[in-house]
Amino acid sequence: MKDDAECATVYNMRTLKIPTASEMSLTKVCNALGDPVRMKIAHCLASSGEKNCSAFEVDHISKSTLSHHIKLLREAGIIQPRIEGKHHFYSLRKDELNTRFPGLVDMILQTGGLD
Amino acid sequence: MKDDAECATVYNMRTLKIPTASEMSLTKVCNALGDPVRMKIAHCLASSGEKNCSAFEVDHISKSTLSHHIKLLREAGIIQPRIEGKHHFYSLRKDELNTRFPGLVDMILQTGGLD
Repeated sequence: MKDDAECATVYNMRTLKIPTASEMSLTKVCNALGDPVRMKIAHCLASSGEKNCSAFEVDHISKSTLSHHIKLLREAGIIQPRIEGKHHFYSLRKDELNTRFPGLVDMILQTGGLD
Repeated sequence: MKDDAECATVYNMRTLKIPTASEMSLTKVCNALGDPVRMKIAHCLASSGEKNCSAFEVDHISKSTLSHHIKLLREAGIIQPRIEGKHHFYSLRKDELNTRFPGLVDMILQTGGLD
């Protein structure tokens, strides 16, 4: 229960659960990363740290589609959201990913965001 | 062209291209592994070597659906097919995966096929 509390984040008036490192599923992580837009977002956060979603440089995508991509990345445990006023910031959960899937962050970085 | 020839395999009367290690895309590999059935097949082959598809122990799946899963794994470069008479055998391309994505085969093994 402590882990659950630690990994839940208040987001958009709802409490959203983010899996702990040990709860993360390789299938779900692969499913989240198995899309060019989501891989690009993961690469952006892996290479630069916390970012507002406007920094993702994913063109021709509606706000709702971007939200869907962010939701899949968050639910898989790949990214962590943070709200500051009206702004939503996201960061890659590098520590959790490196603990659960050693080497994966390096693989994401090596794509150059153009995989 | 030499790489192409080396990595093409005559399969079901067609020549199917399988990417070389350097051609493999992390997004496509993740897309292929981002499904419980395909992860189970990859785990089966990672833990046991070459197998006939009857050994995959994926219940309640039609032959055409299984073929689709195998196709996605093959096209991503994760598995290699081999035909012997009427039997189709598959193996995980461990060397290529270890070269291109170090650590990924270990991640697949650690799922226990139940991720």
